Amino acid sequence: MSKKILVTNDDGIDSKGIASLIEVAKTFGDVVVVAPDKPQSGQGHAITLVEPIRVEAYTHFNNVTAYKCSGTPVDCVKMAKSVLFKNEKIDLCVSGINHGSNASLNIIYSGTMSAAMEASLYKINSIGFSLLDYASDANFKASQHYAAILIKKMLAYEGNAGKLLNVNIPKLTTEEIKGIKMCKQGKGGWLEQFQKGEDPRGGAYYWMGGTFENHHSHPESDLWALEHSYVSVVPCQHDLTDYLTLKELNHFENI
Amino acid sequence: MSKKILVTNDDGIDSKGIASLIEVAKTFGDVVVVAPDKPQSGQGHAITLVEPIRVEAYTHFNNVTAYKCSGTPVDCVKMAKSVLFKNEKIDLCVSGINHGSNASLNIIYSGTMSAAMEASLYKINSIGFSLLDYASDANFKASQHYAAILIKKMLAYEGNAGKLLNVNIPKLTTEEIKGIKMCKQGKGGWLEQFQKGEDPRGGAYYWMGGTFENHHSHPESDLWALEHSYVSVVPCQHDLTDYLTLKELNHFENI
Repeated sequence: MSKKILVTNDDGIDSKGIASLIEVAKTFGDVVVVAPDKPQSGQGHAITLVEPIRVEAYTHFNNVTAYKCSGTPVDCVKMAKSVLFKNEKIDLCVSGINHGSNASLNIIYSGTMSAAMEASLYKINSIGFSLLDYASDANFKASQHYAAILIKKMLAYEGNAGKLLNVNIPKLTTEEIKGIKMCKQGKGGWLEQFQKGEDPRGGAYYWMGGTFENHHSHPESDLWALEHSYVSVVPCQHDLTDYLTLKELNHFENI
Repeated sequence: MSKKILVTNDDGIDSKGIASLIEVAKTFGDVVVVAPDKPQSGQGHAITLVEPIRVEAYTHFNNVTAYKCSGTPVDCVKMAKSVLFKNEKIDLCVSGINHGSNASLNIIYSGTMSAAMEASLYKINSIGFSLLDYASDANFKASQHYAAILIKKMLAYEGNAGKLLNVNIPKLTTEEIKGIKMCKQGKGGWLEQFQKGEDPRGGAYYWMGGTFENHHSHPESDLWALEHSYVSVVPCQHDLTDYLTLKELNHFENI
């Protein structure tokens, strides 16, 4: 039987990245799309509670049932699973291809990865794909090559459902990329620099900018793999418990 | 030397929960506040990238330097650390007291916990407090009692900085609560039910609702502790790597 693949992203349904991913996904099964109607980068796991969500059919993709959604990336997955494709089995969710890195700590801010995580909570195997190139006209050829390989592997995987992979692809050609590395999340973080400015009416504002700092490229980390021309694949989970600290702070129970 | 404590939340600077937390924090040191100017529940780790952020002094708290911020809870912490209190050492960040549970899977959607996590990334010990009562006029007496105990313990803690605690308090009186349990994140999730409606101009909309399902109350989980009248404390981390799956999928490296 044909496989059903849900595609979403956080750069918006009009982005080149999602069109590139749909192209690949279509070679593996029936593709359905629910994606934000505008860019939603940095939305993390945000959901829309205080206002309604709108969805509208989107007809720009050939032979693909697609909807654009006014909500966040996570809203898109919830709408797909609870409303739009409620009675259909989804075999795989792919999110992206993101314009820009979601390696290391970027995962916690990433709408792309949060959407994939949300699908994994419904016990759907899920993959978030990100290319290390922020350009809106980025070249997704190598990303498509590796997306095809990983989608095939994931569709063939027969273990527990709800696996979640964070896949990042270096900004290189297919020939330059050395292969796939299974990795752990690398240590890094953003060094913020807020641009201070004044609006036309004299009101002060701050605009968030910054640079990503690699704190330590451990050889088993995604940051190391990407620096060394590999596609990085980090299996992720939603249990945030810090088990070491749980043991260490056991005495906090004593009042 | 006096300790400096940063207070934030996601229900907004006007909420009863943050006023209750400030009251407690003030008994332990100098309190500074940066909190959203409006409710920001369900914002997860969202950050504001495509538009500017505004901050304004907020003078309703006695003897406390406070700012209200147009951004998300995570934006508030970034503004505090990178702009407003850039040159000051912050000894502890406390977030909340949230109106409603952030136990179990709620942590990934929670602005309260994401703000505390953001502070922990700056190597500031951080605690998110949540009361299992969504009412805007909830009674925070017991929460304040336990917040005082845990703030004291955390300020006295001398291990590695950047610890993060997810604290949930049952909707009970101080006398009814049996004590503190150190826990792992319980297994649960939301069962969405979207309310479908029509706006005054005939446009369809969906509004997210749902109920939280406890999938299995493991005796060491926060869900179990809360059901059994304990305050639950879950130490959390931002490394999302699923190390078991990393081993299991090692063959994904073979192309």
